[in-house]
Amino acid sequence: MFDIFINNKGHDLYHNEICQWPGCETKIKTFDEFLRHLNTDHKLDDRSTAQTRVQIQVVSILESQLLKERQRMIAMTKHLQVSPVKLFRCFTL
Amino acid sequence: MFDIFINNKGHDLYHNEICQWPGCETKIKTFDEFLRHLNTDHKLDDRSTAQTRVQIQVVSILESQLLKERQRMIAMTKHLQVSPVKLFRCFTL
Repeated sequence: MFDIFINNKGHDLYHNEICQWPGCETKIKTFDEFLRHLNTDHKLDDRSTAQTRVQIQVVSILESQLLKERQRMIAMTKHLQVSPVKLFRCFTL
Repeated sequence: MFDIFINNKGHDLYHNEICQWPGCETKIKTFDEFLRHLNTDHKLDDRSTAQTRVQIQVVSILESQLLKERQRMIAMTKHLQVSPVKLFRCFTL
């Protein structure tokens, strides 16, 4: 079953030897150990399900914020009649 | 020139009689007054340009955060082998 959540880049819940499950941050030396940890400490139960629901809400809130701030950015650049790309390039040079 | 940044819904920088330019929040009673305010207090100058650059960065940071949190959410739901839609529905009922 592991092939479901493993890709060529590794795993989105395992970066720099740290478990990225929200609130976990356990240091784990090898990928095999991480997979064991994931299937033991974050197995399908009420707690993991609740944490996943919270994560879905985190994503939903970020989507709303991004929509709002992007609309504001576009309105500002339109008002000033400048290109966001041009402004951003000036900023990063 | 006003037709550039006015649409049928109003203006993305004017909600609930409040100017939405970052850090402004001036209460303005009418849309005409708002347009005068926008072209006076937020005209094209160094300050407005700098504020717009910051807004572009705000959007960029939110995009990165959303990408990261969405990847984490997908990895969590894949690991638990549940549908995010199903989880979200359970959460909101």
